[in-house]
Amino acid sequence: MNTIDLSPILAEVVDSTTKGYPLSALPLPLSAIGAQGWNLLRGDLPLPLAVLRDSALAHNHAWMRDFTAATGVLLAPHGKTTMAPQIFAQQLAAGAWGMTVANVQQLGICARLGVRRVLMANQLLGTLEVRTVIGLLRRHPDLEFHFLVDSPAQLAAIEAAAAIDPPPRKLHALIELGVPGGRTGARTHDAALALARQVAASRCVALSGLECYEGLQISGDAADDARTVGALMQRVQALALECDRDGLFAGPDVILTAGGSAAFDIVARELPMRLSRPVLTILRSGCYVTHDSGNYERLLAGVKARSGGEWQTRPGLQPALEVWARVQSCPEPRLAILTMGKRDASYDIEMPIALKRFRPGADSAPRAVPAGWTITGMNDQHAYLRVDADAADSPQVGDLIGCGISHPCTTFDKWRVLFTVDDAYRVTGAIRTFF
Amino acid sequence: MNTIDLSPILAEVVDSTTKGYPLSALPLPLSAIGAQGWNLLRGDLPLPLAVLRDSALAHNHAWMRDFTAATGVLLAPHGKTTMAPQIFAQQLAAGAWGMTVANVQQLGICARLGVRRVLMANQLLGTLEVRTVIGLLRRHPDLEFHFLVDSPAQLAAIEAAAAIDPPPRKLHALIELGVPGGRTGARTHDAALALARQVAASRCVALSGLECYEGLQISGDAADDARTVGALMQRVQALALECDRDGLFAGPDVILTAGGSAAFDIVARELPMRLSRPVLTILRSGCYVTHDSGNYERLLAGVKARSGGEWQTRPGLQPALEVWARVQSCPEPRLAILTMGKRDASYDIEMPIALKRFRPGADSAPRAVPAGWTITGMNDQHAYLRVDADAADSPQVGDLIGCGISHPCTTFDKWRVLFTVDDAYRVTGAIRTFF
Repeated sequence: MNTIDLSPILAEVVDSTTKGYPLSALPLPLSAIGAQGWNLLRGDLPLPLAVLRDSALAHNHAWMRDFTAATGVLLAPHGKTTMAPQIFAQQLAAGAWGMTVANVQQLGICARLGVRRVLMANQLLGTLEVRTVIGLLRRHPDLEFHFLVDSPAQLAAIEAAAAIDPPPRKLHALIELGVPGGRTGARTHDAALALARQVAASRCVALSGLECYEGLQISGDAADDARTVGALMQRVQALALECDRDGLFAGPDVILTAGGSAAFDIVARELPMRLSRPVLTILRSGCYVTHDSGNYERLLAGVKARSGGEWQTRPGLQPALEVWARVQSCPEPRLAILTMGKRDASYDIEMPIALKRFRPGADSAPRAVPAGWTITGMNDQHAYLRVDADAADSPQVGDLIGCGISHPCTTFDKWRVLFTVDDAYRVTGAIRTFF
Repeated sequence: MNTIDLSPILAEVVDSTTKGYPLSALPLPLSAIGAQGWNLLRGDLPLPLAVLRDSALAHNHAWMRDFTAATGVLLAPHGKTTMAPQIFAQQLAAGAWGMTVANVQQLGICARLGVRRVLMANQLLGTLEVRTVIGLLRRHPDLEFHFLVDSPAQLAAIEAAAAIDPPPRKLHALIELGVPGGRTGARTHDAALALARQVAASRCVALSGLECYEGLQISGDAADDARTVGALMQRVQALALECDRDGLFAGPDVILTAGGSAAFDIVARELPMRLSRPVLTILRSGCYVTHDSGNYERLLAGVKARSGGEWQTRPGLQPALEVWARVQSCPEPRLAILTMGKRDASYDIEMPIALKRFRPGADSAPRAVPAGWTITGMNDQHAYLRVDADAADSPQVGDLIGCGISHPCTTFDKWRVLFTVDDAYRVTGAIRTFF
């Protein structure tokens, strides 16, 4: 169950047409990259470069394993964050129940590599997509796949596609309960219950559980978020009780799933419940695995404050993802232009955060940047680093700047290969993404 | 000269791990995709999907060929926009002098495929990068490569790298003249002239011309932009005259280059000049090739107004790039959720622009969306389409929505393969990007 076969990925040959690959190096299979002895700080790699710090990844895997174990919930991490099966394999090895995906292409990648429990935190729709799912179920008798349904129109479309190409077993749907003013999801208890009855009566779809997504309601105020998310969990529970009482659930157990990366602790405490059959409470956090240096780092304070005890004192999630660039120009006082732009690092929540500096030939290890060094904007291929007035300590042309990012999803999709590094920035391997 | 060998790209095999590739189709070489008879509107392709309209691409190639011919300037289109050598080949076939790139990785891709005139509209820096350039010059005796220099520190770093690994011929530098408050570039005439003298005196670098970038100064006010850009062109000309008088230029001709995609017409009119040796005036526009439905469409009005005559009346550049998605949920009145998000379409200048709708089973061709349908936001994998109150004409679950984008660069980098389509949305081929 859920054994990922990474051999086809590790055998893939990478060359210098891939961003970040050393420009004069010969093509290499992914598996050979960690043995080359490359080091970012020694100048072996072209910049900009996205790297994943092995130590932070390992820490985060252990942290989330302990958190889910302590709270008694399961984890199907959202694979859309990294779309990196090598990281999926680490997540499954650390105890994840399965994986979450956002669409059928992502499901296909998981199924092909051996993942056998997949949630799609999205509506299944489209004749081609439905038939692809049916084909995957036929090819993999042990594939367990659950998707979201939030409207009768969607259910009818699935049934029409399945009528052309009958599935080998019933498709498993989770009713999505939504929030007024929110994204997808049936807006009311009554609409969701009516839809659950329609699914339970379907000839080709079975009701395997309920889903919601609390992540878009998060304000960052720890207490406020606890109330808002708690109320949503109560709505899911009320719907689950009614579906259970009416015998609408079809499987040996019932899946209740929620939980992005901002308030998964509230879900872990508030969503578990008892029904007439076993309940699997499944979190879907995706960003915990790399964490970040912006949005999720700020939100982690709320997770820790609400979780109390050990979680307040033990080291929290660590930022694993950094993008390094070079100072290419210092054209005016207090301004440095970096070789990094919208093609290389997230900018959808805020600009990258300058964390570290390294002057080749002078520094033996990266130093923290002074307070007040701020990236104020990016163009496609450039970043603007504003610094304070202390000229003696200013950046110089040729300096390397290591940046944290905010929102890992929108950095991962800019890199086909990310290098993993140890704490001395030696390259230990290469991670392939599938976007 | 500049003959691109596309055979390694066309032989590359694509499969359903690539976003947009039909999920149940067998792997195919890129060259075979156009013969499959796939059609977006018939549901042969998973959504979201980015497509390039062949007719618009052909129109834009011809438009820019005519524009540069009429104004007597050369074109080295910025390849960073598409990073698609198949499109580079079209641009060169339409008469482009060479290509522009943003970094040494992009140069490497151009050189490897056969492009022999490359401008890098960026500072060359980094020992690895300088030595890569030297290696490329050694491997390709006919490669003509010009990069930017804007500081003595950068020049010294290049000279230090070249001292380790002497180049087979002098490296060709363009002095970048900058704008106070702008990005890179020497800020003053005197600083730029002093740097030009240093380059002219260098043992390994020769001065081949001057560069500036006017694109960050553009306000969208046609007359205002004409004044601002005109003044910058005059500064370049004054510097060129002085460099020429002092014999600082080294080549058989002098390169003067400017021109993004917003105000290339002003550059084409204002930058050409006479010096003691032939002057090559080279535009670097990248976005003209696909144009867009937002930012550049608005800016084109200024280009046309300033250029007058024929350019005001003949059809302007056409948007070639569209991203199609499906309505997956209509959870509230006046709201439709689309299967498209930050992973799929540009959002850095504005949200995608809903242009077309197609209801499978009901429509025979796409229809224009009603006025007022607006995408108001995107998450990683979802878009929010707000519509007016006319329920009879509202989107339905399963409808396809075709969106224009604003700023093509940040859509191209989200797709490893984009399909080309004819006006009936039949797939005619596949374009591979290198990000």
